[in-house]
Amino acid sequence: MFALRYQQGRLGVAEVPEPEAAGEALVRVRLSGVCNTDLEIARGYAGFEGTVGHEFVGVVERAPGAPELEGRRVVGEINAGCGRCELCLAGDSRHCAGRTVLGIVGRDGAHAEFLRLPASNLLAVPDSVPDERAVFCEPLAAACGITERVAVPAGARVAVVGDGKLGLLCAQALVVLTGAGVTLVGRHEGKMEVARRRGVETLKADELPRSAARSFDVAVEASGSPDGFRTALSLLKPRGTLVLKSTFHGRTELDAAPVVVDEISIVGSRCGRLRPALELLERGAVDVESLVHEEYPLSEGVRALERAAAPGVLKVLLKP
Amino acid sequence: MFALRYQQGRLGVAEVPEPEAAGEALVRVRLSGVCNTDLEIARGYAGFEGTVGHEFVGVVERAPGAPELEGRRVVGEINAGCGRCELCLAGDSRHCAGRTVLGIVGRDGAHAEFLRLPASNLLAVPDSVPDERAVFCEPLAAACGITERVAVPAGARVAVVGDGKLGLLCAQALVVLTGAGVTLVGRHEGKMEVARRRGVETLKADELPRSAARSFDVAVEASGSPDGFRTALSLLKPRGTLVLKSTFHGRTELDAAPVVVDEISIVGSRCGRLRPALELLERGAVDVESLVHEEYPLSEGVRALERAAAPGVLKVLLKP
Repeated sequence: MFALRYQQGRLGVAEVPEPEAAGEALVRVRLSGVCNTDLEIARGYAGFEGTVGHEFVGVVERAPGAPELEGRRVVGEINAGCGRCELCLAGDSRHCAGRTVLGIVGRDGAHAEFLRLPASNLLAVPDSVPDERAVFCEPLAAACGITERVAVPAGARVAVVGDGKLGLLCAQALVVLTGAGVTLVGRHEGKMEVARRRGVETLKADELPRSAARSFDVAVEASGSPDGFRTALSLLKPRGTLVLKSTFHGRTELDAAPVVVDEISIVGSRCGRLRPALELLERGAVDVESLVHEEYPLSEGVRALERAAAPGVLKVLLKP
Repeated sequence: MFALRYQQGRLGVAEVPEPEAAGEALVRVRLSGVCNTDLEIARGYAGFEGTVGHEFVGVVERAPGAPELEGRRVVGEINAGCGRCELCLAGDSRHCAGRTVLGIVGRDGAHAEFLRLPASNLLAVPDSVPDERAVFCEPLAAACGITERVAVPAGARVAVVGDGKLGLLCAQALVVLTGAGVTLVGRHEGKMEVARRRGVETLKADELPRSAARSFDVAVEASGSPDGFRTALSLLKPRGTLVLKSTFHGRTELDAAPVVVDEISIVGSRCGRLRPALELLERGAVDVESLVHEEYPLSEGVRALERAAAPGVLKVLLKP
C-alpha cells in the first residue's frame, strides 16, 4: 500500500506493506486530515519516524474480537495504552506512559491506505455524518477537551486567540458546550466570519480595544505563536486561566511575575474524548465544512502538507 | 521617624514625617521581616518608590472606628482595596485593580517606625505568639495560600523546589494543611534539616534519583530561578500542577510542548489569608524560629537587605 512517511529527515509517499494487525483492527482509510502536528513532525521537531497523520475516517476491514465493527465506518481514539497501568485500567489511556499514538508516537499513522488500531479505540460513525465531517472528529474532540481541563461556567467570558482551524474549532465548541460568551481574536476576516455565523464574537488581533485587556476569565492560545501567548495572557482577568492548546514552534519567554501577581493559571490541553465530538458533528452543531480548504489524493501528500503549512490555509484533506 | 526607603534608584534610611493615618489605623512597628520582594524593589525591578517592607508585627497607636484595636499587638493584610469594586465588596481585596499594597504598590511599607493600614486589615496577635513568630504571619499566609489555589488531596505527592525561607514555609505549611507527602528539593543540608524535623522528606537538587522524575502530583517552585522552574516541571506526573510562588529575577524560557502533551497546569500563587497562618503560628505547627538568620536595628536597614540577599541567608529581621 502507499503511505505518507517521514523518515531519515525526509517526507515522501512510499510503498510499504499493509500493516499487520496483530490482534488489532485493520481500517481502510477513506479520508485523512492534515494537522499542524503533522507539519511539526515533517520538520523533524517531534522525533517521530513513520507514517504521518492521526485524523481519519475509515472502514473496518477486520476487527478480531469485535466482529460488530467489521464493515462499519469508524473514527478512532489515537492514543493506544499499555492496557495494564493504573491509567489504562481506569479507562483513560491518554497519559499512559507506555502509550503509542497514531502517527505521532511509535505507531504508523493515518495518511495511508490502511491503518491499525485496537478495536476498542474505534467508534462507529452514524450514516448521517459524511466523511468530510467525520474526519474532523479527532480535532474537534481536542477542542472539546478544553472543558475536561477547565470549568467554564455559563456567563464566563472566553477568548480564543488564533483563527486557524484549531481556533475555529475551539471557539465553536466552547459556544455549544458551555454557553459562555466566546470571542475569537484573529487576523483573517473570512475565517472570523465562519465563527461569527456560529455565535462567536470576533476581534482583530491588531486592533484590540483597550477594554479587552484584563477582561476575560479564560483565554485559549490556539495560534501556535509566542505573540498569541502574550496576547492571551494580556486578555485575562486576575485569577484567569490560559489554556495552551497548541505546542509552539520553538520556545516562548515566560515572565513569571505577572502570572504570580495576578494568580493566573496556565493549563495544557491535548486530546479530548471522541464521543461528545461525534455527537456535535451529528447534530451539525459545529461548522466544519467551511474549514475544508483543499483535498488531495494521497499520492500528492507532500504537496498537501506544503499547502497546509501556507499562511491562511485551513484544513487540507487526503484521499487514499 | 526613620524609614528604609527606595527612591530615585537608591536604598537608604531616611528621616520622614510620621504617616498621616487619614482614617486608617496607625501602627508602631515592633519588628519587620525582609522578603525577597524587598530585594527586587531595591534593585529597581518592581517600579515602587517609598518605604520598603510588608512583613511586620506592631502595636496599634490609633484606630479610628476600631477602638478595640488600640494598644493591641497586630499583624496586617498588606492589600488595601478600593472598597467599592465587586472584589472588595465580596470581601477579598487581593486582586482589586485599585489596590495599594504595603511597601509594594502605592503605599509606604513596614521597615519604619510607624505604618498605616485600614483598621479592617489588622488582626490581633494572641499573647502566646511572640514578635519573632508573629512577624512570619504574612509569608506563612502566602505559603498557606497555595491551598486556596490548588486542591492538594491527602495522599498526593508534593515537591517543593527551593530550600530558602519561602520553600521552608511552603513545605511545612503543606504538611500541616494537607496531609500530603511533601518532599523538599534543596541544596543546603542545614536548611533541609529544618524541614525534616517537621515531617518533610528531602532530596538534594543535584542528586535527584531518576525515580523522582514524573512522580509528583504537585510541584511548588519556590527557588526563584529558571533552574528551579525546570526541575519542578520535570518532577510532575502527567496532569500535574506546578505552583509558581516566586517571581523570577528576569524571565524564563517556556517550552509549551511538554506542558500541552502532559497537560500540566501552571498556577500562580501570591498572597494568602492571615487568620489560618496566625492559627498555625499559635499552635506552633510550623517552625519559624529556625528561619531567623539575623536581626538588625532599622538604622542598619541597608546592610540588613544586603545580608538578606547573600546566598544561604534565611530571614533577616529589622527592629525600629
